[in-house]
Amino acid sequence: MEKKFFNRILYGGDYNPNQWSKDIWEEDMRIFKKAGINSATINVFSWAKIQLSEEAYYFEELDEIIEMLSKDKHDIILATSTASLPAWMVKKYPEVARTDYEGRHHKFGQRHNACPNSLVYQKFARKLAGKLAERYGSNPHVTCWHINNEYGGECYCENCEKAFRVWLKDRYKTIEALNKAWNLEFWGHTIYEWDEVVLPNALSEGIGSDKTAFAGISIDYRRFNSDSMLENYKMERNAIRKYDADTPITTNLMGTYKNLDYFKWAKEMDIVSWDNYPSYNTPLSYTAMCHDLMRGLKDGQPFMLMEQTPSQQNWQPYNSLKRPGKMRAQSYQTLAHGADTIQFFQLRRSVGACEKFHGAVIEHVGHENTRVFREVMALGKELEQLREIIGSTINSQVGIIFDWENYWALEYTSGPNKDLTYVDQIHQYYQYFYNKNIPVDMLSVDSDLSKYDLVVAPVLYMMKAGLAERITAFVEKGGQFVTTFMSGIVNESDNVYLGGYPGPLREIAGIWVEEIDALAPEQKNGVEFKDGNAYTCELLCDIIHLEGAETIATYKEDFYGDTPAITKNSYGKGNVWYVGTQVEQDGIAHLFNQVIAETNVKPICSNGEGLEITKRETTDSSYYFVINQNTKKQLLPEELVGKRNLLTGEIVKEAVELGQFDVLLLK
Amino acid sequence: MEKKFFNRILYGGDYNPNQWSKDIWEEDMRIFKKAGINSATINVFSWAKIQLSEEAYYFEELDEIIEMLSKDKHDIILATSTASLPAWMVKKYPEVARTDYEGRHHKFGQRHNACPNSLVYQKFARKLAGKLAERYGSNPHVTCWHINNEYGGECYCENCEKAFRVWLKDRYKTIEALNKAWNLEFWGHTIYEWDEVVLPNALSEGIGSDKTAFAGISIDYRRFNSDSMLENYKMERNAIRKYDADTPITTNLMGTYKNLDYFKWAKEMDIVSWDNYPSYNTPLSYTAMCHDLMRGLKDGQPFMLMEQTPSQQNWQPYNSLKRPGKMRAQSYQTLAHGADTIQFFQLRRSVGACEKFHGAVIEHVGHENTRVFREVMALGKELEQLREIIGSTINSQVGIIFDWENYWALEYTSGPNKDLTYVDQIHQYYQYFYNKNIPVDMLSVDSDLSKYDLVVAPVLYMMKAGLAERITAFVEKGGQFVTTFMSGIVNESDNVYLGGYPGPLREIAGIWVEEIDALAPEQKNGVEFKDGNAYTCELLCDIIHLEGAETIATYKEDFYGDTPAITKNSYGKGNVWYVGTQVEQDGIAHLFNQVIAETNVKPICSNGEGLEITKRETTDSSYYFVINQNTKKQLLPEELVGKRNLLTGEIVKEAVELGQFDVLLLK
Amino acid sequence: MEKKFFNRILYGGDYNPNQWSKDIWEEDMRIFKKAGINSATINVFSWAKIQLSEEAYYFEELDEIIEMLSKDKHDIILATSTASLPAWMVKKYPEVARTDYEGRHHKFGQRHNACPNSLVYQKFARKLAGKLAERYGSNPHVTCWHINNEYGGECYCENCEKAFRVWLKDRYKTIEALNKAWNLEFWGHTIYEWDEVVLPNALSEGIGSDKTAFAGISIDYRRFNSDSMLENYKMERNAIRKYDADTPITTNLMGTYKNLDYFKWAKEMDIVSWDNYPSYNTPLSYTAMCHDLMRGLKDGQPFMLMEQTPSQQNWQPYNSLKRPGKMRAQSYQTLAHGADTIQFFQLRRSVGACEKFHGAVIEHVGHENTRVFREVMALGKELEQLREIIGSTINSQVGIIFDWENYWALEYTSGPNKDLTYVDQIHQYYQYFYNKNIPVDMLSVDSDLSKYDLVVAPVLYMMKAGLAERITAFVEKGGQFVTTFMSGIVNESDNVYLGGYPGPLREIAGIWVEEIDALAPEQKNGVEFKDGNAYTCELLCDIIHLEGAETIATYKEDFYGDTPAITKNSYGKGNVWYVGTQVEQDGIAHLFNQVIAETNVKPICSNGEGLEITKRETTDSSYYFVINQNTKKQLLPEELVGKRNLLTGEIVKEAVELGQFDVLLLK
Repeated sequence: MEKKFFNRILYGGDYNPNQWSKDIWEEDMRIFKKAGINSATINVFSWAKIQLSEEAYYFEELDEIIEMLSKDKHDIILATSTASLPAWMVKKYPEVARTDYEGRHHKFGQRHNACPNSLVYQKFARKLAGKLAERYGSNPHVTCWHINNEYGGECYCENCEKAFRVWLKDRYKTIEALNKAWNLEFWGHTIYEWDEVVLPNALSEGIGSDKTAFAGISIDYRRFNSDSMLENYKMERNAIRKYDADTPITTNLMGTYKNLDYFKWAKEMDIVSWDNYPSYNTPLSYTAMCHDLMRGLKDGQPFMLMEQTPSQQNWQPYNSLKRPGKMRAQSYQTLAHGADTIQFFQLRRSVGACEKFHGAVIEHVGHENTRVFREVMALGKELEQLREIIGSTINSQVGIIFDWENYWALEYTSGPNKDLTYVDQIHQYYQYFYNKNIPVDMLSVDSDLSKYDLVVAPVLYMMKAGLAERITAFVEKGGQFVTTFMSGIVNESDNVYLGGYPGPLREIAGIWVEEIDALAPEQKNGVEFKDGNAYTCELLCDIIHLEGAETIATYKEDFYGDTPAITKNSYGKGNVWYVGTQVEQDGIAHLFNQVIAETNVKPICSNGEGLEITKRETTDSSYYFVINQNTKKQLLPEELVGKRNLLTGEIVKEAVELGQFDVLLLK
Repeated sequence: MEKKFFNRILYGGDYNPNQWSKDIWEEDMRIFKKAGINSATINVFSWAKIQLSEEAYYFEELDEIIEMLSKDKHDIILATSTASLPAWMVKKYPEVARTDYEGRHHKFGQRHNACPNSLVYQKFARKLAGKLAERYGSNPHVTCWHINNEYGGECYCENCEKAFRVWLKDRYKTIEALNKAWNLEFWGHTIYEWDEVVLPNALSEGIGSDKTAFAGISIDYRRFNSDSMLENYKMERNAIRKYDADTPITTNLMGTYKNLDYFKWAKEMDIVSWDNYPSYNTPLSYTAMCHDLMRGLKDGQPFMLMEQTPSQQNWQPYNSLKRPGKMRAQSYQTLAHGADTIQFFQLRRSVGACEKFHGAVIEHVGHENTRVFREVMALGKELEQLREIIGSTINSQVGIIFDWENYWALEYTSGPNKDLTYVDQIHQYYQYFYNKNIPVDMLSVDSDLSKYDLVVAPVLYMMKAGLAERITAFVEKGGQFVTTFMSGIVNESDNVYLGGYPGPLREIAGIWVEEIDALAPEQKNGVEFKDGNAYTCELLCDIIHLEGAETIATYKEDFYGDTPAITKNSYGKGNVWYVGTQVEQDGIAHLFNQVIAETNVKPICSNGEGLEITKRETTDSSYYFVINQNTKKQLLPEELVGKRNLLTGEIVKEAVELGQFDVLLLK
Repeated sequence: MEKKFFNRILYGGDYNPNQWSKDIWEEDMRIFKKAGINSATINVFSWAKIQLSEEAYYFEELDEIIEMLSKDKHDIILATSTASLPAWMVKKYPEVARTDYEGRHHKFGQRHNACPNSLVYQKFARKLAGKLAERYGSNPHVTCWHINNEYGGECYCENCEKAFRVWLKDRYKTIEALNKAWNLEFWGHTIYEWDEVVLPNALSEGIGSDKTAFAGISIDYRRFNSDSMLENYKMERNAIRKYDADTPITTNLMGTYKNLDYFKWAKEMDIVSWDNYPSYNTPLSYTAMCHDLMRGLKDGQPFMLMEQTPSQQNWQPYNSLKRPGKMRAQSYQTLAHGADTIQFFQLRRSVGACEKFHGAVIEHVGHENTRVFREVMALGKELEQLREIIGSTINSQVGIIFDWENYWALEYTSGPNKDLTYVDQIHQYYQYFYNKNIPVDMLSVDSDLSKYDLVVAPVLYMMKAGLAERITAFVEKGGQFVTTFMSGIVNESDNVYLGGYPGPLREIAGIWVEEIDALAPEQKNGVEFKDGNAYTCELLCDIIHLEGAETIATYKEDFYGDTPAITKNSYGKGNVWYVGTQVEQDGIAHLFNQVIAETNVKPICSNGEGLEITKRETTDSSYYFVINQNTKKQLLPEELVGKRNLLTGEIVKEAVELGQFDVLLLK
C-alpha cells in the first residue's frame, strides 16, 4: 500500500506574492530558505488577475512567481483559482453567482460563490484549468495540482433546479419510482411531471435552516449538490490531464465538513489533502479522528496537510495563540496519523481584508525574528531528516464506519431527540481507541471489512443496500461488530425498514427494539453492567427485547428499568454488540474493554495512556510517534526504550519523561 | 344542553391506507377490530391523489377505502384534503402558494400552504368539497366531515393585500375612520386612498417577527387573516351542505393557537374538535385548560379529540414516550373535560417523510404485539362500555375570560415589559381552580356572565365595546369579578381609554392606576396580605390609588412600598378584585381562597387535591372522573365512596388508593 | 468659547397637538404654563398631513399650532417632518423607500424610511424645508430648526449603489487606487470597472449581520451612508437658510449611535442636540460619557437635550419607572455636562401606536395630578432661575479620543476576539475619571491635543494619516498619552501598518507587540504592578517587547507570564503608556493614579467620590453641580461649603448630607 507522491516532506503553504511588491518576493525567498520551507501553494485566488475579461488572459506575473519558486527548487502546488469568481464575470453573467437557501440570488462578493451548474462558470473554469496545465504542466517543480479551494456551500438557482431534475431522472427513471422513494403520498405531495420538483429550501420543503418536511428530497439534493461540485472538480481535473498526465491532483478538504460526500470525492482525487483548524478547545482526539478520516478516504493512503495555522486563526470566536511547542506537536500528530506534508495557511500575512489576523510564517512585522518563525524554522530542520517516513502507512485492526449520507439523513430526522448529532456520536467511540493508543481506520460503508477484527458503526441510521449482508458476512467469519441505538432504521431513500428495529441488523444483533425513549437534557438514566459497574446514560434509550442476544448491561430506572440496555449476540464466529443508549465515556470504556478482550486488538504500547502513540510502517521499518500534548508529564513506555529517535538521531536509553508538547519519533 | 353527535365514543384516528398496499389494508382491519377501534379519519392529505390535473379526478381508491371501512361499520370522519396543495396546481398557478412574513413568495412544499385569498385555490377547494359530499354524503358511515386540517399560518401576497383593503372598507367605511382607528396621525402615516394600505409585515410595519409599529394595523390583519381562512372553511362547508344537510362538520383546532379567533370559528362549526399534543413537561393543568377552552368555544358543548399520539411525538425537541398508563390517563382527562371522542394521530406509522417518528397504534414493526397497542386495545375495551356519558356536560360557577383579539393586542404592545405573555397569565389563574378541582368554563368576551358566581379576566388589556357594561351588570347582581394589571387599557382599535387606567373598569374596581412599573427578571418585589402572609411578585407593578376600593395586599418594597397591590371594591351586590402585579402561585391561592369565600363556588370534592376530579352530568346522572397523574399515591375522597366505577362495573366500597395513572369513573 | 443660543433654559419637548382635538390644545396650554414649560418641539412627523399630494400642501393646522404657541411665548423648535415618508409618496414613487441589508426593497411603513439617494425624496424634502422656512422663518418664537429626526439606518438600493460608485470615484480617482485601498487582490476580487462595485450587504461581502469579507468596502459604505444622510441634512439646512439666515439649526443625535460619523455631522450643525434614553441598568458613567461626547462634537459648546422621558420608556425590554427624584437628578446631570436645554419626549402621551406606553408630561389620565407631572413642574420652577448658566462651559485637562471610523473598523475585524467592542472599551477608561470627578473632553482624531495634559486613546485601531504625528507632537511637548492593545494597527483603508505593532505608535510607545493572544470568556490572566498589586485581565493579551519603554505591570501566567503587560515610555517631555490587555476596573484605577501623578490633572474636589461633581464656567463665575444618584448618602466636600446653592438661593454653611437624587448647584 506504500505510495510516494513526493520525495521529501513538503513544508510550506499558501503563498500570494501577487499581493506584494517584488522586493518582498526576494525577501520571502531568503526567509523561506532559512526556515527549511521547500514548497508553496500558489494561485489559489487569482482568477480575476489572470483573466482580465472574457477574452484576455494575463499570465506574466504567475510566470515570474513560478520561475522564482522553480529557481529555488520549491515544490509548487499549483491551484486553479476557480474558487472565487472575477467581478467582471458576475457583472456580465449574473447567473454564475449562487442563489442561497433563502432563495436570494447573490451579487458579487466573498468566495466559493459559483453556481456549480452554471454553464458559463463551467466553461470559464474548464478553460482556465486547461490553460494553466498547458502552460505549467511540464514544469517539473509543479509537483501537485490543487483544484479550486475548499469546495462547499449550496446553490438553489433555476439552473440547479433544472439540473436536479435531470439528476433525478437518471437516478429514478420513472415518476412512480420517485414518488415511492420520497414517499410523496404523505401530505399528498404526489407529482406527475418531473418539473413539479422544486429544490428543497426555505421556500419549499425546508423547515428552519436544517430540517425538512421530506428528508428524501433533501438528502437527494445533498447528493446532487455534492455531485455537482464533484463534476466541477472532475471537469477541471480532466482539463488538466489533457496536458499533464502524471502530476498528482488534489483539492483541499475540511475534515468532517457536512455537505460533500468525501468518500465519493476521494475516488476522483490522486491524493487527499485537508485543512486542519482546531479551535482552542477542540479535543485532541477529535483532531486525530479527522486525520484518520482523511487517511481513510483513500483506504489508508498517506494524505497532505494542505493548511494549518502556525500561530492563530482569525475566524474563530476566540483565536488563541498556539502555545510554544504546540504547532510542532500538532504537526507531528498530523504525520503520526498518516500525512506526508505539513503546509501552512499562510506564508506571509495579508495586509488587508478579512484574514489579516490569521497567523502566518511571516507576520506583519515582516521579518523572521519572531517566536512563530523560530518554531517554523526549527520544525523545518527536523522535517528535512524525515524523508524515510514518506509513504509509510498505518495498520489497524479496528474500523469505525463514517458515512456522509447517514450524516445527512440522521440529522434531518424530525424526532426523537433534537440533540442527536452524528459526528459527536462517532467521536465518542473514537475516543476510546484514541485514549488507548489503538489505531483505528475510518471506513466508508463500502470498505472491505474483512481485514478488521472489530468494526464499530455508531448510529448507522441509514443502511444502504448490501451493507447488512457485508456486515453479516464479517460477523459470521468471526468479527466483532458494535452498533448503537438509531441504527438499521432507514434505507437509502430514508424510508423505514418495516418489521421491527434495527431492521436489517435485527437478526444478527439478536434483538428487537420496540420503542425509543427520548430524554430531555435534564433527564438521565443509568446502565448497570453485570459486574455491578454503573454509568449514567442520556439522550435516547432503546427498549430492547432479546431475541437470542444476552444482556451486557441493564437500565437502572424508569419503566424499562432492569431491561437490556446493552446486548451481545453470538452470530457465526463473531459477535454483535448493541448499545441502546448514550452512555458516558467511562461506560463506553468499560464496554469496549470487554469487546476488545474477544479480539486480537492491542494498543501500540501496553502502557502509554496520557501519551498519543501511533505507528507508521513501511515494508522494512516501523516508526513510532510519541507525543505528549497534555500538561502532565508522562514517562515513555518501557517497550519503546532502545529505539532510535529520528529527531535527534540518538537511541533512547531509558524511559524518559515527556513534558507538554514533547515529541519522539522512534524507529 | 345535552347534545349527541355520535352514538358511541368514537375511537380511532388518522388513517392513510392510500400510503400502503392492499394486503396491509386487510391486516389493518383485523388489528383495528382487535383494539376496539371503531372510527377512522381519512382523506386528510390526498388532494394530489384525487385530483390529477385541472380536469381529471380519481376517486376509485377512496371509494375502496370507504367501502372497506363501511363494511366494518367504522364511523368515518371524512376530510376534504384541502390543507395541502397538489404540486401540479402550484406549478400551473403559482399564486395559490403563500407569500411569507418576509415577503417571499413560496414554491411548492410542505402543507397549510394555500393563500386563503387565491381565487384559484378557492375554486378548486370548493369544487373538491362538493364532489366529495356528492359522492359520499349519503353514506351513513360517514358520520363527520373534517374540513381541511389545522388551519393556520399567514399570507402576505398581493391577493391578500387587495382583499385586506376590501375587508377594511367594509369595516371602516371611510378613510377618516381608518386613520382614526389606527391613529395614523402618529409618525405621519395618514393615508388618503385605500390602496395606500400595505400588509403589515417585515417590509412595512413589522418590527422583528412579532412586534409592530402600528398594532391597529397588525391586529386588523390578524382579524382579516383569521376571517379569510374562516371564509375558506365556510366555503367548503357550504359546498358540502348542498349535498349533505345533516352530517356534523368540523375542522381540527389547536388549543391556544394564536392566529385564529377560535370563538368566532366555533360559531360556524357543528362540533369543535382539537389536537392535543402536550410536551413531556407541559403542566397537567395546562392541558386541562386547553380542553376547557375547546369545550368553551361552543358554550360547553362536548367536543371531539381529533388527534393525540398513543406513544410519542416527533416534532417536539424531546419526544418522550408516554409512560405505561399515561395515554389512558390522558384520554380520561380528555373525556373528563368534556370530550366525546378519543382519536389518534395515527393508526399506522408512515414509512417515510417528517412524521415517521410520530407514534401510532400500529408501529413500524407492523404487528400488534407492542406495549402501545396493548394499551390502545385495553382502552378500547373500556370505552365501549361508556356510551352513556356521551353528550353529558359540565356545570361551572367559575368562568375565565379568554379572548383572541386581546391575546394579539397584548402581545403586540411595545412596553412596559417584554416578558408578558397572555396564555401564561391565563394559565396562572386557571391553575388555582385546577388544583382545587373547581370546574371552570373558559369564556369569550361575548359569553353570558350571568350564570357564574365568579368571573376571572386576567390582563383584559383590550376591552371591546359593551364588555364593561356587561361586567358591570354581572357585578351589580352579585358577581365576583377578578381582573389584573394591564386591563381596561385599550379599545378594539388598540387606542387607549383616556382618563386613567383601568379605563372602563376604573369605576367598578374603585381604583386608579397611576403608573405601571416594569421589573426586569432579576428584580422582585413582594405583596403582603393583611394577615401578614407575604409572597413575591414580579414582571409589572401597578401603582394604585384607592377610589373606594379597600386594600387586600400592599407592596413590600420600593417607593410604592406599603401602597395597594391588590384591592377589592364592593360594587352593587358584588365585588371587583384587582391584582396589580404578578404574584407567585401561592399568593394567587391565598387571594382566591378569600374570593371564593364570598361565593358559593365549591370543589367537586372537598378533599381531593393531588387528584384531578371532574363531574360530567346528564339530566339523570352524574359521572365523576377521578384521575391520578402524579407519582404520589392518593386516597379517593370519602365523598365518592359508594359509587359505581363504570370501568369495572363495581361499587367502590372504601377510600381506595390511586397510584400514578389510575382512573376511576364513578357514577 | 461662551456661546448662547437661547435666553432661557428651554424646557419642553415633543408636542403633537395635531393628534388631538382643539379642546385638548387649550388644556395643554394651561398645564404647560403650570409646569413652567416654555418650549415645544413640533411638526416632527407631519409630512403626510402637510403635503397631501405631489402638488397640494396644507399648512393651516400648523399655522394654528404655531400661533397658539407663539401667543404663549413658547420657544418653538420647528421640525421639518422629513423623517417619515407620506404613504402616497411611497405608493407613487416606490424608490423613495429603502432596500435593507438583506436586499429587500421595503414598502410603506415605520419611519426613518427614506432612501437618502432617492432624487424624488430629495426633491420633496428640500421643497418642504424651504416652504416651512419661508412661512415660519421670520416668526421670532421659532428659535430653533430641527431637521428630520434621529437620522439613521442604511439603504442598499440601486440608487445608493450608483451613488456609492460616484462617491468612490471622488475619493479614489482611479480603479488602481481602489483595488489597492480595499486590498482586492485578496481572494481575487480585483475589479476593472467602477460598475463592478456592488454594495456590501448580505448578498455580497456581508458575513452575518455585522461582519464583512472586506472591511475596506464596508467601512467606505458606512462613510458613504453617513455622508449621504449628511447631504440630506445639508440640503434641508440650505433650503432653510434661503429664508432664515440666523435661527440655529440642529438635528437630534443619539449618543454613541454607530452608523453616523457625528464629528463630521456636528460641523454642519449650529448646535448639537441629542436624545438621552438610559435603560434601568445603564451605568451613570455611561450617560455622563454620552453627554461629554455630545459636548465634544462641537469642541465643548453647550448642547441641547432634545429628548428624555419624564418617567419610562416603551421600547426597552424592561421599562422601569424613573424613581421619584431621578428625572430631576438626571436632568441636572445633563446640565452638569454642558446642556442648555431640558426637553422631553413627550409632552402628551399618544393614544395609539407603538409609543403609547412611552412616558409623557401629561399621561393618559389627561390631568396634572400625577407624580410625574409634579416632578416636571418642580423642575420647571427651578430651571427658570438658572438662566445665568446658559452658555457656560467645562474646562478639562483630560481628553479621550472617540472616532466613529475606528468604531466601524474595529468591530468589523475578523479576529482576534469576537467580544471586543469599541464603546465598552472607551467607557472603561472614561469611568476612572468619572469616579474621580475629573472632567473629560471627548475628542475626535482631529481635535487639538495641545491643550490637554493627558490624552487617552483606547483601542485606537485605525490611525488615519497625520494622527501619529500629532500625538507625537503632543507627547514631545510633555503630554501623557495612554493607549491600549489593538492600537496603531491599520490605516484609513483598514490595511495594516506593516513593520510591527503598534505601527505608527511603536516608536513613541517604545515597544513592539509581537503577538496578540485571545482569551475565551472562561479564561483569565492577571497583571501585577511593581508594588505587588495584582488584577485580573482578559479578552486580549499583547505579547510585548520593550524597545525603550519600562515595564509598569507584568502578566501573571501563561507562557508570557512575567513579560510586560503595561508599559511606560518617556518620549520628549512626555510619556506614552501602553496597556496591553483588558484589565479589571480596579487595575485601571491603579494605573491611572500613577499616570495622573505625572500631570496637573486634579479632581474638581479632592474628596467627592460617590457624588458626581462637575464645574461649568463663564468668564465671571463657576457653577458646581453636585449630584448624588446613588442610594448611599454622601457628605458634601468641605471645599464646596460656603457657596450659594442656586436652587435654594441659600449659602451652604456646612458639609450637608446628600441623599439619593439630591442635587446642589453651587456658585
